[in-house]
Amino acid sequence: MIIISGTETRKKLLEDYKKTIEKENLDIGLSIIQVGDNPSSNTYIRNKLKYTTEVGIKSELIKLDEDVSEEKVIKLIKKLNKDPKVTGIILQSPLPAHIDFTKCARLISDEKDVDGFSEENLFSIRDNNEKIIPCTVKGILRLFEAYDINLEGKNVVVIGRSNIVGRPLADALINRNATVTLCHSKTKDMKEHTKRADIVVSAVGKPKLITKGMVKKDFIGIDVGINVVNGKLVGDFAKNTYEKASFITPVPGGVGPMTVAMIIDNLIELKRK
Amino acid sequence: MIIISGTETRKKLLEDYKKTIEKENLDIGLSIIQVGDNPSSNTYIRNKLKYTTEVGIKSELIKLDEDVSEEKVIKLIKKLNKDPKVTGIILQSPLPAHIDFTKCARLISDEKDVDGFSEENLFSIRDNNEKIIPCTVKGILRLFEAYDINLEGKNVVVIGRSNIVGRPLADALINRNATVTLCHSKTKDMKEHTKRADIVVSAVGKPKLITKGMVKKDFIGIDVGINVVNGKLVGDFAKNTYEKASFITPVPGGVGPMTVAMIIDNLIELKRK
Repeated sequence: MIIISGTETRKKLLEDYKKTIEKENLDIGLSIIQVGDNPSSNTYIRNKLKYTTEVGIKSELIKLDEDVSEEKVIKLIKKLNKDPKVTGIILQSPLPAHIDFTKCARLISDEKDVDGFSEENLFSIRDNNEKIIPCTVKGILRLFEAYDINLEGKNVVVIGRSNIVGRPLADALINRNATVTLCHSKTKDMKEHTKRADIVVSAVGKPKLITKGMVKKDFIGIDVGINVVNGKLVGDFAKNTYEKASFITPVPGGVGPMTVAMIIDNLIELKRK
Repeated sequence: MIIISGTETRKKLLEDYKKTIEKENLDIGLSIIQVGDNPSSNTYIRNKLKYTTEVGIKSELIKLDEDVSEEKVIKLIKKLNKDPKVTGIILQSPLPAHIDFTKCARLISDEKDVDGFSEENLFSIRDNNEKIIPCTVKGILRLFEAYDINLEGKNVVVIGRSNIVGRPLADALINRNATVTLCHSKTKDMKEHTKRADIVVSAVGKPKLITKGMVKKDFIGIDVGINVVNGKLVGDFAKNTYEKASFITPVPGGVGPMTVAMIIDNLIELKRK
C-alpha cells in the first residue's frame, strides 16, 4: 500500500513554481477577499498567503466586516477585475448568509478566476476544453500524475455532486477516459458502487463514510473529506480501508496540501495568458 | 413489458402545443439554416417544418450552397439573432467539413437557441439551474414523465459522452437524483455496468450494442441509436433485450419522434421569456 503524499508532492511543485516565477520574471499579484473572521477561513488564508509569498507572488488580504453589504463585495470584485496589478482574485468561502457566494464568485473575471469557479471555466471542463480547473480538482489530477496512476478505462466512483468539486471532477475524469459513476446523498446502496470501483473519490465530509467492506482489494482511495473528530482531522475513509488500498491519500497530508499549490499553478497559468 | 411510444406521446404533446399557441396567441418564428443537400438532413428538416407549421409556428428554411463560407454562415446567424420575427434558430447538422458546427451553433444567441447548444444553456444543466435543454435530452426526460418513471435513486447507465446528448443527459439525470454512470468507447467491460443498471440509455449508434445478456430483468431501456441495417431503421438495443425490459423505447417510434416535439417545446419556452 502506497500513501499518496500531497505534502511531498506539493514540496516539489513549490520548488518548481518558485524557479519558474524567477526565471520567467512573472509579476503575479493575488488578492484574497475575506468577509468576517471565520476561524477556519483564517487558517486557510494564512496558508494561501504563506505559500504564495514563498514562491514570489505578491499576495494581499482584503478583510471586510462581517456585516458588509453584498453590493460592496461586488464593487470590490469589479475594482479588482480592472486592476492591472491583480493577476488573480479569491473570494474566501464561507460568506455570511446575506451574501450569495456563487453569484459573487462568478463576477470574478475569467482571466482572474484563480479558483476556477466562473461559468466559463467550469463549463470548459464539461466541454472537454479545459481552461482554469478548480484547485481541489486540479490537485487530485496532479496526484494521479505524480503517482503514475493511469485513468483510462478505470472505473471511478465519485461521491458528492457539488458544483465545484464532485461534478467538475467527474467531468475531468471523463475527459481522461475514465468510466465515472457520480454518487450522492440520494444514491441507494453506495456499497454496490464503491465495491466495484478501481478508484473511489469521496468528497462528502463524513467520517467513516467508506469502510473496509465497501471497497475492493487494491482499490485507489482519494479522500477529499475534512472532518474534525475529537479534535483530530480525519477524512471520509475509515482507517481500516487502508489495508485494502493500493494507493490512498491520507487526511491530513493528502489532497488538502495540493489545493494551495494549485492556486499557484492557476496563477501562473493566468499570468502567462 | 411496456413499449414507450414516442409517437403517441408526441401526438398528445402536439395537440397541447397547438392549443397553447392559439390560446396565448404566440407569434413564433423558426428559422432553419441548411448548408448543402444532405439527404438525411432533408428528411429531418421536412419533419421539423411539417410539425412546427401544424401547431401554428411560422417556419422557414434558409438553404445555403454546399461551398458557402463559414463567414457567411456566421453573418446569417448574427442577422437572425437580431431579427425580431425570429424566435428560434436551428443550424442543421451535419455541416460541410470547412465549417465548424460547434463554433457556429454557439453563436446563436441564448434567447434563440432552440437546440440548447449554447454554452450558457448547456452549462445550466451541469449547474443544476436548467434553462433550454437539448431536444433529444428533453425528449427522453419527457418520456420518463409520460410513463411515470421515477428517477430518484435509480442506477442509470448512459452510454455515449457527446457534448449534446450523453453528457447533458447525465447532468440532467444527476439533477433528478439518479446515480449516473457515464460509459463510452474507452469503458472496459460495458456489461459489468449495464448488467446492474435500472435504466440503460444508449446513444452510440451501433446495432446490437446492448444484448440480452448485458441487462438485468425488468430494466428500462432508452434507445437513442439510429442505425440503418438492410434498409431498416434499428436502434442500439438488440431485439432480444425487449423480453427482459419493463419499459423500452423502440426504434423507430421511441426517442426520435420526441426530438421534433421538443423543438416546439423549446420554442414556446423561448417565446414566453
